[in-house]
Amino acid sequence: MSDEATPATRATEATTAPAPAPSPGTRRPGGRTARTRAAVRDAVLAGLTEHGYPGLTVEYVAEHSGVHKTTLYRRWGDIEGMVADALDLAGEDSWVPPDTGSLDGDLRALAREVVESFNDPAVSASVSAMIAAAFQSERAAIALRAYYTERFARCETIVERAVARGELPDRADSAPGPATDAGGLVRSVSAPLFFRLFITREPVDAALADQSAATALAAARAGVFSAGGAPALGDGS
Amino acid sequence: MSDEATPATRATEATTAPAPAPSPGTRRPGGRTARTRAAVRDAVLAGLTEHGYPGLTVEYVAEHSGVHKTTLYRRWGDIEGMVADALDLAGEDSWVPPDTGSLDGDLRALAREVVESFNDPAVSASVSAMIAAAFQSERAAIALRAYYTERFARCETIVERAVARGELPDRADSAPGPATDAGGLVRSVSAPLFFRLFITREPVDAALADQSAATALAAARAGVFSAGGAPALGDGS
Repeated sequence: MSDEATPATRATEATTAPAPAPSPGTRRPGGRTARTRAAVRDAVLAGLTEHGYPGLTVEYVAEHSGVHKTTLYRRWGDIEGMVADALDLAGEDSWVPPDTGSLDGDLRALAREVVESFNDPAVSASVSAMIAAAFQSERAAIALRAYYTERFARCETIVERAVARGELPDRADSAPGPATDAGGLVRSVSAPLFFRLFITREPVDAALADQSAATALAAARAGVFSAGGAPALGDGS
Repeated sequence: MSDEATPATRATEATTAPAPAPSPGTRRPGGRTARTRAAVRDAVLAGLTEHGYPGLTVEYVAEHSGVHKTTLYRRWGDIEGMVADALDLAGEDSWVPPDTGSLDGDLRALAREVVESFNDPAVSASVSAMIAAAFQSERAAIALRAYYTERFARCETIVERAVARGELPDRADSAPGPATDAGGLVRSVSAPLFFRLFITREPVDAALADQSAATALAAARAGVFSAGGAPALGDGS
């Protein structure tokens, strides 16, 4: 084995990032270092999928990545470092949220993208492996949180465009603080889908994606994510 | 060791059921069999919390429950059977959803109950252990799904009461199929909370509980969970 990575067998950034999956063709050009990093990432994901976090060893990563153990220890420190870096790498893509011209369309496209990404067994296995690892590794949990924080920050452009189009109120002048809890809004689109996939273990489909998007949209229109909180609550029934 | 269980050290049904947590004082009276089952459940939860599913052994459960290995094998078959039974046992409580007199109040109380249950470290650890086990054991995943299916079926009474009070439309006469997707509605209250706790690894608090409840309420009022789907979608912007 050498420091040089063996070619990745099949996984690419497009299939290993936690959902929403990035667009195809976003793999960065890279030299030996980038290839080594990707090979280690692929081996980590394969190992997590095959054995789970507690069964993932440096020996496994070395064997499946073609990267020597001494290199792994030097550059990643330990297994936790390799898992965290796999998540960091997943976040280094050029994915952008849907831009359909309306808030309704954007939220629905976002939800459907999540559902469709989980129809890909490779994506499903990788995301599942990372979410599972976060239960057992604090550093994986921190990396997962950072991944989603950054991913949902990208999604906030959907809300910004809706405000600019006048689809959502711009209450910046009339209320203190941010006008809209854009992060809360975009998270509410994905939440019912991930909840069923990983908590209640129920199936998800396009109809559920549409329901999740419609729920977030109705709440946004009712002002739930607007400055000043949730006017829909406490107004009697 | 004998077939008789040692007394459970601290865990009770009230602290080990996945959220929403059952009300205190719901422990059933039980004889030796019930005590043995509870002792095994406590040992399984302790082992899952300490070692994770792959590290959980029959030896550990025997040692921590005081139940002999031969009894464990005879009654539960294997570790998967013990994990699944711990979830089955969690579902055998007398928990009922909040009944505040309004849909608004019920949904908010439900959401806050979820958040508060995770402020209890014992509940948080137990729920986390069960959700984590489902990533690695198909039988645990099936048991988890059954647990939540039954739990959310109980929650549907919130929606039924709201329909009876006229807070939600009763469209049974004008549209085929069920008038309201009560299961979708009550799941949408919990989803943003579990999503942050176990997927994005972000904190949850009472304000987020209120936002989750308000989101579900706004969507319900907009007809997202009513028969015929989501009128909010596709009506232009």
